[in-house]
Parts: sequence; structure tokens; C-alpha cells
Amino acid sequence: MTGNSTDNPSKNHFIYKLLNPKSVCVLGANNNLLTTMGSMQLRNIIAGNGVGDNIYPIHPTLDNVQGFKAYKSILDLPDSITPELAFMIIPPKYIPDMMQQCGIKGIKNLIITSGGFREIGDDGAELSKKIKTLSQKYGIRFIGPNCLGVYNGWYGYPEIDNAYFHTHWVPFTPKRGNVSIASQSGTIASLIVWHTNQMDLRIGKSISVGNENNIDLVDFLEFFRDDPQTEVIGLYIEEIKRGREFKKLAKEISVKKPIVAIYAGGSEGASRSIMSHTGSIGGNQKIYDALFKETGIIATNSVREFLFFLRTFSWAQRNNIYPKGNRVALVGDSGGASSMMAKTSELYGLKVPEFSKTLQRQIHELIPPTASALNPVDLTFDTNFQNLFVRIPKMVANSGEIDSIMVFGVFDFNEVVELMVGTGYELDEKFKLFASTAETAYIKPTKRLIKKSKIPIFYIGPMPFGHSVYKTFFRFDVPIFETWDEPTKCMSVLTQYYNFRAKMSK
Amino acid sequence: MTGNSTDNPSKNHFIYKLLNPKSVCVLGANNNLLTTMGSMQLRNIIAGNGVGDNIYPIHPTLDNVQGFKAYKSILDLPDSITPELAFMIIPPKYIPDMMQQCGIKGIKNLIITSGGFREIGDDGAELSKKIKTLSQKYGIRFIGPNCLGVYNGWYGYPEIDNAYFHTHWVPFTPKRGNVSIASQSGTIASLIVWHTNQMDLRIGKSISVGNENNIDLVDFLEFFRDDPQTEVIGLYIEEIKRGREFKKLAKEISVKKPIVAIYAGGSEGASRSIMSHTGSIGGNQKIYDALFKETGIIATNSVREFLFFLRTFSWAQRNNIYPKGNRVALVGDSGGASSMMAKTSELYGLKVPEFSKTLQRQIHELIPPTASALNPVDLTFDTNFQNLFVRIPKMVANSGEIDSIMVFGVFDFNEVVELMVGTGYELDEKFKLFASTAETAYIKPTKRLIKKSKIPIFYIGPMPFGHSVYKTFFRFDVPIFETWDEPTKCMSVLTQYYNFRAKMSK
Repeated sequence: MTGNSTDNPSKNHFIYKLLNPKSVCVLGANNNLLTTMGSMQLRNIIAGNGVGDNIYPIHPTLDNVQGFKAYKSILDLPDSITPELAFMIIPPKYIPDMMQQCGIKGIKNLIITSGGFREIGDDGAELSKKIKTLSQKYGIRFIGPNCLGVYNGWYGYPEIDNAYFHTHWVPFTPKRGNVSIASQSGTIASLIVWHTNQMDLRIGKSISVGNENNIDLVDFLEFFRDDPQTEVIGLYIEEIKRGREFKKLAKEISVKKPIVAIYAGGSEGASRSIMSHTGSIGGNQKIYDALFKETGIIATNSVREFLFFLRTFSWAQRNNIYPKGNRVALVGDSGGASSMMAKTSELYGLKVPEFSKTLQRQIHELIPPTASALNPVDLTFDTNFQNLFVRIPKMVANSGEIDSIMVFGVFDFNEVVELMVGTGYELDEKFKLFASTAETAYIKPTKRLIKKSKIPIFYIGPMPFGHSVYKTFFRFDVPIFETWDEPTKCMSVLTQYYNFRAKMSK
Repeated sequence: MTGNSTDNPSKNHFIYKLLNPKSVCVLGANNNLLTTMGSMQLRNIIAGNGVGDNIYPIHPTLDNVQGFKAYKSILDLPDSITPELAFMIIPPKYIPDMMQQCGIKGIKNLIITSGGFREIGDDGAELSKKIKTLSQKYGIRFIGPNCLGVYNGWYGYPEIDNAYFHTHWVPFTPKRGNVSIASQSGTIASLIVWHTNQMDLRIGKSISVGNENNIDLVDFLEFFRDDPQTEVIGLYIEEIKRGREFKKLAKEISVKKPIVAIYAGGSEGASRSIMSHTGSIGGNQKIYDALFKETGIIATNSVREFLFFLRTFSWAQRNNIYPKGNRVALVGDSGGASSMMAKTSELYGLKVPEFSKTLQRQIHELIPPTASALNPVDLTFDTNFQNLFVRIPKMVANSGEIDSIMVFGVFDFNEVVELMVGTGYELDEKFKLFASTAETAYIKPTKRLIKKSKIPIFYIGPMPFGHSVYKTFFRFDVPIFETWDEPTKCMSVLTQYYNFRAKMSK
């Protein structure tokens, strides 16, 4: 991934300044992090570091907010200071006045978090019109209203590194990476952070777009297309405002950057929910199904799948590795997990072909006499982890008989050591050393094998994410799953996307 | 749940002794917990406490195994000692001899973990025949071969409490509860423990049945039917040996004890896997679909759903609470999560009806003007957690308009306190106290409401299980989910099962 200013066309896009402001004024924050959402949001802006001291809280009574001098109003700011961005989380009735002040002051970029606009009916619609008119009058661009703001993990990159701009209220920061999200739900944009950090899904940008009064999904698609730090796009959709533009852009982008989407509409209860959520009208499911098919967007109704798909594409994109066909090999030490994965692989359109006799013979030399080499390869209980994790995957990868591999049986040796120590068993030092280096011993060669063979290999363990054994996988960027449910579906969408891209590039 | 010996018919079932042996001899364990699976299994038997000192390792060279005097062979045991059970994890070729020794010694119950029987072809089939003949000759009953053994969290209950009998090799013990599992995969029987403990799925018995040479799923169904500690049954199926008996029993049982099943067969790759795993022939998916429908068994292809369904039924059974219809209310502080849940609810056959004007008016008195009371109820950002978690669910539950409730928005106040303390924010003591008692303040009334209204209420948080906020939910036995994907499907299968039971009881 590169990003110096000359080859970063996104710097010319109007959204760039909204995600990389050099100075910010904040309306609606005080010193109580819990009872006022805006306070937590200001805290996150401060913690992000990039904006530095150029933070200007606006508050009617406080002189100091979270260590920064506060001003009574926008117009009270010194003449020498014109913040590049105003962040507002105040009762909606005050928004037009504040927007006018921004206009007078010359602030051109706004994030309006406050709810209470078109989603609440007539009164809100009136307000919506007002802010639309004001923004046109003053040439203001704004995200929202009724949003949770933005997260940009690549603030000022590459000139500035390791700073971020984070206006969500969650008390955590995502790990930055090549995935960018634009979402008509603040929850999908921000409350996924506990999960994404735990599963090592690395998010570079996550935008809660709110009611899209001024900036919509199409604008963000355009920006993500031009952004060198975006290689995968996630969308949460309740409504698409500019259908034709969306379709054209999505088609253009998805051959280079995979797009994963949740469409939450298409049912009666959902439409009612959407109407009161963002004030938009959800459309018929069939229309969206056709749109997703035509544009190559990978769709799901599950937030878990959304995250897993994004993580899988994130990995495939940054390593440039895709399965070139649908033949999958299953290797593991559990017959049950293998059977279930064989079944779901086929349910999702993959094949689990029987290996050639030659390959079977090769594998049989390495495994216990009771084990199977047909595909799935079931090693049964075998303490030779080099066979399970290194030698057999290598044979299979080099055979030319398959396009992807899944390996079940991740095991934490340290856990056993702890148990033994904790209950008074004797333990030799050699074994302790082995336990603490085991993961690295098999993960490193896998990493090399993936790189050399260009074949995706997914590892699968029985422990939940959060278990310490997975840290090594994350460190070496080898895909790892916490049950054997998701890997088959993820491999299936990788294959599906590869085919789509191949077809479109003809 | 009761269990004194007079009202526990399972005590008369031959399986009882296999799960509650008073004395055990173990073949195939030594002092190295990692490289020998049997050593870990013996360790777990010792840790279970119930068998006490009545453990007799058999080992050709060692005098002492894990603190117990070892004997050279079964026939070397003193005349006064006849273990009630022999546990074997040794190379398959030795099994017939050892079985004969058991027969001579008078040991009538065996668990044979060793693999290498019919699943490996002709040689194994020969061995299988041999052990069948021997068992008939000596009147021996045995689980396996090719299994991972058993876990019984209710060892000797109620005469003995808090002891268990655990022969799996995992370094953990499940939390005991009313769910019993019989599985043709050792992985499903045992390697789920990291997940089940973390999600508070409480398992009373978990049996890896292996090749079912002598004891099969039908035997375990029969035992679970008679077992007062079993209120929910989980099955992992690759093949059903006695179809007619299975169908009859499952029908009889499932109206009282819900049965959740994974059937791993039904596809080409899966059949190949199954053949090499347990040596059985997987059947056509349609046959199994029809069987599950007729018997009311809830089926899934996902291990995650399997665990969530079991946990949901576990809760419904021990509290005797089921939705009496398919009308669901959604209450939350996230429009996006609500929209997604409204959609999946309807996809899974539930209804999300619009509330009556009266109920809407009632709710509107409690919520911000920008919030929605239609159903879903979207409170937007509101710090009045009593409304979200207590008052609105109560209004809805008492309205007579719905049959179940899902509440999104679990939040951890302590996390914010930690963040504030960690980054130098001022914090008053009152707030600290509030943070540490918040969960209890809303979970306790929910517990009462569920009990009084007999309406299931599911809570949903955005954090993964493992997060400390969930401990309070577990303690008060209020259902809690880690994303908004699973609760709708779980509510749907609860409803589905309630309808099945009502129809069958007519």
C-alpha cells in the first residue's frame, strides 16, 4: 500500500478534509464522559493525536472542556482561528443557528451527530430543509445528521503516521487496515469494534453516514475508490438514494476492491424500523438481489458474516491471494469437523474432490495407519503437528489437485503446561520451551507456503477468539477461525469474487 | 430438577454404570500429559473426584502412574478389586486380549477410545467382529471404539454432589447443567468446551459414542429419556443404525425434552469423510429432513447454531418459559440492529407487529421526542437505562400484544470508568458506584418480569462473550447474546418447538 500525496487522488476529493481536519471545533461536549455522548466523542478526537492542540470546544457556560479552552460560541473564536471542521452533537433545534455561525465564520466542513430530523416526521423534515438551504448558501458539506460520526485510522497518512481521527463514542479504537466501511447504521460503523479488534479485522475508515442530507453512500464509494488505503469496502444499506450512480460506481469499483454489504430492508417490520431510523423507504428485496448480483457485491443478512467476509477479503487483497477454482482440501485431526466442513463446502458451491492415488500414497507415508488420506485428510489423534500443519498442506498445495486448503486442529500447548504446573505435575524444561514456540514453528512455514504457492490456507481452532493462541496467527497474518462454521463460507465468497472479477476483466 | 434414587429410572439403565463407575482401571496412560492422550484422560478422571482412590492404572513398565499404584495387567489386580469400568486407549491390536482379561476378571463395562476398527477397512472390520464376539461371550457393554469417552457432570448425584466423571482429553471441565449430548464426533462432544463455558451453555453429560460397536445413539436416547438431569438433548449424527427405534424414541422424547441435531451427511465429500471417520454410510439429506420434521428434532449444519439452540432450550426448559406465539417486540437503542433483527425475525417466520396506538402512547411518554415507539422501539441515544431495560419491556410484556421480546443495547459502564481513570479524567464516587451496580439494577427486574409474565426476554450486547459484563447475566440466568444475529433464530426455534409440542399434545 502506498500513499504519498502525488499518487493519492482522494486528497482532491471533498471528503478528504472531513476525515483529516487540521483543526476542529466541538459543540456538545463537557467533562462527563458517560452521561454526554459528545464528551466521549471529544475524548476520542483528543486521543487520536493528529489534530493536536487545534481543538476548540464551544460551550455556553464552561471555560475549559477536557483540558481545552472553551468558547461561548463559534463567533467568539479569535479571528485568526477558523477550524477546518465543526463537530456537533446538540439538540436539533439549535443546529440551523450553529450552521449559520459556521457559514459566517467560514467553516466549510461539518459532522452533525444530532438526531431528530426527517426520521421523526414533519417537524424534522422542516429542520432538514433548513439545514439543506443553509449548507447551499454557505457552501458547507456535512455528514449526517443523525449519525455517530467518523473513524479514520489513516489520519494525514503518509506525512503523519499512527494518528487517527475518531469521533465515535465507543471507548476503543479499531486496529487500522485496508477495510473501509460506510454505514447507514451507527452501530454497524462503531459498535462492532469489540469484535473486530478481537478477530483482527483491521479497519482503516468507518463512517456513520446518518440521514445523508448532504453526503451519501455514493460520495463515500467515490472517495473509497480514490483512496489508496482502501482495498475492501463494507456497506450497511437501508436505502440507496442515487440508484443509477450507485450501480455504475459499484460496478467500476468492485472489480478492484471487493464490496461486502448488508441490506437491512425488504421485510415489513424492517421497513417500519428503517422509516423511524433514518426516515428512508426500504425497497423490495428482489431489486437489491439483482443490484448485488450485477455489481458483484457480496451480500449477507448477518453481522458476523459481514465481519468475517470483510476480514477474509482484507487478507486476500493485501496478500493478493485468491483461490483460482472451487476445489478445496480439508486436513485435520477431527473426523467430525471435517465431515461438517465437507458438507457446508458443498452447500456453498465448493467441491471436495477425492485425491489422486499418487497423492494419497504420499500422504499415507506420514500419517497413522488408522488415518485417512482421501480428502478430507483425517489424521486422528497424532502428536506430529508438523505433519498436520506443514508437511501435508505442502504436499496438497503442490499437487495441483486443489485450489484452497482448510486445516482444523489448532491446539494450545501452553494451556496444557499451565494445567500441569497448576496441578503439580512434573514438567521438563524442554517441553516448556517446545510449548512456547510451537505456534511459531508451524505458522511460519505456512506463511511461506501460502506466499509461494499462492493458495489460500485457512486455519481453524476450537477455541473462541480472545484465546491467546490466536495472537501468533494474527502476527504472521495467517487466516484463523474460531469454529469450523465460517471458513467454508468465507472460502466460497473468495472463490465467487475471483470468478466475478475474472469474468468482468475479459 | 430432582434426582433421588427412587425417582431416577435411569439408575436401572445399563448405561448408568458407564457414566457413574465407583472404580476404574485405565489402560494407556502414563505421566506425560501432552504426548499421550490417555494421560490427560486419566488426569481428568482423577480431577473429577467422584471415583476417589479407586483408580487402577494398568501399565507394562511403570510402577506408579500420576500418583496411583500401577499394575502390569488387568489379571494382576488383587482378587479383592474388580473395577466397575475399564477405560482403554491403547493400540487396537491389543484390545481383544485386554477385553478377554476384563471378561475373566469380571469387568462388565468398557470405554474403548482407541481408533483403528471398521473405519480403516478390512483389517479393522476383522477386529470389530472379534470385540463384538468377546463382548457377547462375557456380557460386556462398551462405548466405542474410536471415541473420546464420556463426560458426566452429575456423577453419583444426588447422593454425591459436585463430582464428575470426565474421560475426554480436553484440559477443561464443562459447567454442569440440563443439556446432554451424544455425538458420533469426539470433537462435538468435547472440543466445544471453550465455547460452551464462555457462553454459559451448561452441559450435564457429553458422550462421544465412536463406532457404536456395542452401544449406539438409540441407547443413549433411551438413557437420556429416563435421566432426570437431562432436559435438553443434543445429537451429532453421521449415521443412524437403528432407524425405526430412533424415530419412535425421538418422537416420544422430543415432546418433553427438545432435541437439537447436526446431521453431517448428505453430500459427496461428507460421505467420504464419514466413511473414513466412523466407517458408516451417510444417507440422503431428504430422508433426514423428513425424519427431523416428523420427530420435531431441530436441525442445523452449524456448530455455532447447535450451541446457541441448546443454550436457548436449556434456559426455556429449566425456567419453563416459551413464546406462546410468533409476535416479537424489538426494543433497543440502535436503529440498525433493530432493522436487521426485524428482517431476520421475519425471515425465520416470526412477526414484528406494529404496536397499538395505546401502547405507542404509553411508550412515548418515556422516550426522547426523536425516538420511535412503533415496534421496533428505537430509543436512540438515551442514558435512561431503566427505560430501555425495565420500563418499556414491562409495558410491552403486559400489553398482550406480543409473545417475546428482544432488547438490544447492553453497555458496560465499568469500561468507561476504567478508561476515565486510565486517562486522568475526574470521576465522582457516586458514578463509580453506579457503574459497578448498573447491570444488577436492570437485570434483576428483568428476571422478575420474565418470571411473572412468562414471556421470554433476550438481551443483546455488541461485545463478544468473554467480556466481563456478561457475567451478571449468567448469574441471574437472563439470556444474553453477543451479536444480533443469533437471537432471532433462537426465538424462532423456541416458537417452532412450542408449536410442535402443542400439536403433539392434542
